[in-house]
Amino acid sequence: MIHIRTKFERLSKELTERFSKLGSATVHEASGRKGAVDPAIKPIRKGLRLCGPAFTVQCAPGDNLMLHKALEKAQPGDVLVAAVSGYPESGYFGGLMAVSAVARRLGGLAIDGCIRDSEEIIAMGFPVCSRGFCIRGTSKSVPGLVNHPTIFGGVVVQPGDLILGDDDGVVVVERGECQSVLAKALARVEAEAKKSEQLRSGISSVELNKLGKVFEALGLVEE
Amino acid sequence: MIHIRTKFERLSKELTERFSKLGSATVHEASGRKGAVDPAIKPIRKGLRLCGPAFTVQCAPGDNLMLHKALEKAQPGDVLVAAVSGYPESGYFGGLMAVSAVARRLGGLAIDGCIRDSEEIIAMGFPVCSRGFCIRGTSKSVPGLVNHPTIFGGVVVQPGDLILGDDDGVVVVERGECQSVLAKALARVEAEAKKSEQLRSGISSVELNKLGKVFEALGLVEE
Amino acid sequence: MIHIRTKFERLSKELTERFSKLGSATVHEASGRKGAVDPAIKPIRKGLRLCGPAFTVQCAPGDNLMLHKALEKAQPGDVLVAAVSGYPESGYFGGLMAVSAVARRLGGLAIDGCIRDSEEIIAMGFPVCSRGFCIRGTSKSVPGLVNHPTIFGGVVVQPGDLILGDDDGVVVVERGECQSVLAKALARVEAEAKKSEQLRSGISSVELNKLGKVFEALGLVEE
Amino acid sequence: MIHIRTKFERLSKELTERFSKLGSATVHEASGRKGAVDPAIKPIRKGLRLCGPAFTVQCAPGDNLMLHKALEKAQPGDVLVAAVSGYPESGYFGGLMAVSAVARRLGGLAIDGCIRDSEEIIAMGFPVCSRGFCIRGTSKSVPGLVNHPTIFGGVVVQPGDLILGDDDGVVVVERGECQSVLAKALARVEAEAKKSEQLRSGISSVELNKLGKVFEALGLVEE
Amino acid sequence: MIHIRTKFERLSKELTERFSKLGSATVHEASGRKGAVDPAIKPIRKGLRLCGPAFTVQCAPGDNLMLHKALEKAQPGDVLVAAVSGYPESGYFGGLMAVSAVARRLGGLAIDGCIRDSEEIIAMGFPVCSRGFCIRGTSKSVPGLVNHPTIFGGVVVQPGDLILGDDDGVVVVERGECQSVLAKALARVEAEAKKSEQLRSGISSVELNKLGKVFEALGLVEE
Amino acid sequence: MIHIRTKFERLSKELTERFSKLGSATVHEASGRKGAVDPAIKPIRKGLRLCGPAFTVQCAPGDNLMLHKALEKAQPGDVLVAAVSGYPESGYFGGLMAVSAVARRLGGLAIDGCIRDSEEIIAMGFPVCSRGFCIRGTSKSVPGLVNHPTIFGGVVVQPGDLILGDDDGVVVVERGECQSVLAKALARVEAEAKKSEQLRSGISSVELNKLGKVFEALGLVEE
Repeated sequence: MIHIRTKFERLSKELTERFSKLGSATVHEASGRKGAVDPAIKPIRKGLRLCGPAFTVQCAPGDNLMLHKALEKAQPGDVLVAAVSGYPESGYFGGLMAVSAVARRLGGLAIDGCIRDSEEIIAMGFPVCSRGFCIRGTSKSVPGLVNHPTIFGGVVVQPGDLILGDDDGVVVVERGECQSVLAKALARVEAEAKKSEQLRSGISSVELNKLGKVFEALGLVEE
Repeated sequence: MIHIRTKFERLSKELTERFSKLGSATVHEASGRKGAVDPAIKPIRKGLRLCGPAFTVQCAPGDNLMLHKALEKAQPGDVLVAAVSGYPESGYFGGLMAVSAVARRLGGLAIDGCIRDSEEIIAMGFPVCSRGFCIRGTSKSVPGLVNHPTIFGGVVVQPGDLILGDDDGVVVVERGECQSVLAKALARVEAEAKKSEQLRSGISSVELNKLGKVFEALGLVEE
Repeated sequence: MIHIRTKFERLSKELTERFSKLGSATVHEASGRKGAVDPAIKPIRKGLRLCGPAFTVQCAPGDNLMLHKALEKAQPGDVLVAAVSGYPESGYFGGLMAVSAVARRLGGLAIDGCIRDSEEIIAMGFPVCSRGFCIRGTSKSVPGLVNHPTIFGGVVVQPGDLILGDDDGVVVVERGECQSVLAKALARVEAEAKKSEQLRSGISSVELNKLGKVFEALGLVEE
Repeated sequence: MIHIRTKFERLSKELTERFSKLGSATVHEASGRKGAVDPAIKPIRKGLRLCGPAFTVQCAPGDNLMLHKALEKAQPGDVLVAAVSGYPESGYFGGLMAVSAVARRLGGLAIDGCIRDSEEIIAMGFPVCSRGFCIRGTSKSVPGLVNHPTIFGGVVVQPGDLILGDDDGVVVVERGECQSVLAKALARVEAEAKKSEQLRSGISSVELNKLGKVFEALGLVEE
Repeated sequence: MIHIRTKFERLSKELTERFSKLGSATVHEASGRKGAVDPAIKPIRKGLRLCGPAFTVQCAPGDNLMLHKALEKAQPGDVLVAAVSGYPESGYFGGLMAVSAVARRLGGLAIDGCIRDSEEIIAMGFPVCSRGFCIRGTSKSVPGLVNHPTIFGGVVVQPGDLILGDDDGVVVVERGECQSVLAKALARVEAEAKKSEQLRSGISSVELNKLGKVFEALGLVEE
Repeated sequence: MIHIRTKFERLSKELTERFSKLGSATVHEASGRKGAVDPAIKPIRKGLRLCGPAFTVQCAPGDNLMLHKALEKAQPGDVLVAAVSGYPESGYFGGLMAVSAVARRLGGLAIDGCIRDSEEIIAMGFPVCSRGFCIRGTSKSVPGLVNHPTIFGGVVVQPGDLILGDDDGVVVVERGECQSVLAKALARVEAEAKKSEQLRSGISSVELNKLGKVFEALGLVEE
């Protein structure tokens, strides 16, 4: 068994770039409502955006050994996606690791647990989505896996899948579906701009979405 | 049975206006400590204020059909108060619905679940108190109730009651008690200004609140 | 039994001052990873710092009588450390109490429950770490203890121990260990500055931490 | 204001008796899916049944003074329905109180918190639904309300409403609706007996419930 | 896209039979510590055993339409494995459905939510593992998926995988690994019988597991 | 620093024996309402009783190395009291360890996490109080502490303190207080027997506890 994998296909830089301008809710809708991560995993500061191919890491509870290995092996632009064996309340990632991640031009970190040295990391501008902050340190001694399929916030992530996070939450898009999801997301943005104009003019969302028929079928009684 | 009610008495614009300058904790005290909503329901940005008569909505879990009906039927200034059958983790309200709410000059939204497109909605300045953000979409197909008495964050809300929210939390005041609660709240503000001055001059809060007698009665031993 | 104690040894002003410039995670590491308080207890605004000797208070659920006694008895610089019998959802501390605390030059408040009048207290600049905000008021009638050993956020606190809080969380250092923990923390800061430089130059954290040997010993297979 | 009310209309003995033979899920359905209490409130032993008119009590957190008043004032057959201000983890009711409740022939206790002396109470056969067991004692000193409308496990209970509990959970039926709910529940039991026979003969529940049309309308693709 | 799949390979009856005599913890260990379902999912009565090939179902929150489809399509011996979109607190499965499941000789139900009519279902002897009981009914109108890969209690389940449940919890074994896991589990049972004998004779588990070396390497100081 | 301590004073066999016949709630009251462990820690079967001097163990999250050391070092009658670093969801203790514990005549196990092989352990009659059952295995490699002061279910436990558990929950009594607590508990049992008789004769608990005066002082209005 190979514990630490490094070879996998990533979505292209150009696709990553185009996704980075889209909202997470839009992309979630465009991918058929798949890939929504547990909403308790959020950006560490308002307005932050996280986007890139997933480099997956599985840590033992309270141990960050494999995150160090990931920092060493990930390529520029990669987003570390870290599962923590259901034990969120440790500071799995801190200021020094962020310095290294910036030096190696990684794309960010999405972690199913807490981090620490948050002020420092926010000041560096390194994008992180986490369950919060915790000062408790970790050990660096228990083995785990790198770039195996991973359950992250209740969603299956394969290495190379797209990770996109903003204030609304984090979404995962399968690598093979990125092209078609992008097309649908862009179409959705355009359609929403039109709808927005109609709503601004005073048309109700019931009318716009043709919900009149739904209410009729349900037989709800109105005053 | 009438599912969708639209006729109910609202507190007056003038009363609403006067409440909008008071803090939620002050109003909660003035109403005899009633009406405090679950403290996990908070403004979507620091410093936001929500104030207006309640227009109540009961959604099925993961469905926002009735919120669309509410957007259609509510009057300018109304605050939508939405219960979600104990299933908070969907994005029940998003950017397009906020566009419509602003176009119809609604007073805001208080929801016992999550919303999405948060950046957009904050930018519009539409006041929302929620349990947080979630990218998961909803269906638009399951029936519910509009303007029936509703349990919202553990508090019973009747259509037309006052909803007031700020960083401390959300409070509900029964419509029929608004006049007297306002008077008590204003008296309280005045009294607190005086107390504040005394405390600033160095008087202890034990002395100010005449707690000496309480301690004496309890027989606590001090060094 | 003496319920309200006022005599205990505090760490010195000079030590307090020097701790106030250190991060909570650094101090937690320097004290051998002891004293990390439940991570749900956090500053009431980003960037706030709390530092000083603990003046401990044990309140009954939903009652703040003993906090008033503490305000009366604490010395300038003391940090009130309040346990609330496992009932966080009341506003145990509000604007008027903060006015008094500022007038008496207290160092801050760390509370295992909620507070209210948050905007006002943030505006005053009084440092508070809490579980959040809640408008529910308290009674002022049930006895408790002042300056007895207290479990605060899962950690035992003795009067006079150091309390340090920032965005990463809150840590407690035993008074008798403050001198040696400070020395270790400063050494750690210095060492981290050097490590930071090395990581910036491109050395990996695996190399820097000599984790190669750990991976070797574990026999993990890499591609 | 009257804090302790004792006069209210109860559903009749005969109705209570007939309800006592029905399952809680059946009654919940028959009342239009209203009145389902938080499912964490369950019988203290498997197979226990609780049924009777509600005698409501509101206790302060960690205090059982009002439960003693309720024991004194309730009539034979009444079920005490106790709210505990959101603080479940005390033993609000114990062996001695159960002795008194049996002596006074009360119908049982439904409590939104914990009890203690559970072995003793189970041995006495006194029916109790609770959130569990807790050895922590309470005070007997803080006032509350008796027979005011009460939120119990998320449901509004009026004095005299029907409380029905079994292993599936606890349900509340408004007094004024008991007659019609009973009729619907009995019809439902009869209908279910017929359906059960059909299902036993091998007919699928899709066919029995005419769900074929639903699947057709949804356009789901089957292999 | 095919929503409702019915064709997939199941592990053999003979293998199922042999697994049904093993404990869930033993099988979990034998499969390399994979497949442990969230421990909150437990048998509905002590001593119950659940074993068979997974027939997976994904329900919308508060809707059991797809469970009816599953009852119609599953084969004798199949265990329905139902995900419920993170909304456990409905009674997704009840007495009538259990009657149908028994008539069709299904192997059982493992569900990531609640069921109702529990007494009836326990009396029928139909094996169910669930998060508990809830009287709240469901709708029968929202689409979902049948026999797609499903996340169940935090574990990925493919149709045809083995589901095994007892008082210790529920474990999933990939169909392709069942043969080898069985062999390892049987070897483990045999080895444990020997170890048990040694421990009974008074040898310590430190000695038996050769943990002396571990303690030596860690340098722990003993009195 | 000594990690593994073995020398500490235990309460006497005779005292242990006498405590073993008392209920946990009674003992909790008799010790002045101290020492109540988190009520989520309960016996693994109804009716079980756990009683003996505490032999404390601190495990790393997901590791049971120190429990093996404890099995080796504990004396007959000792109750292992295990903290698990806030990570309950592993099976820290299983069938083989129970075999060893029985062979060495230990008094039982109280653990702030889960165990596995529950059927087997119940069948052996070995007394265990835990947070539940979990099939997930642990590592045997991370160091911890034996017989240091330990926080167990929110209570400080010193080696040699009394641990008493039954269906109501688990209570800790400081060794030095056992003699006086026992006396008070026995007096309490006697007093309760008398009270029980009075209540059975129909005297109300308000009268028995002289609560009339309390109600009078509070000024509650009765109908």
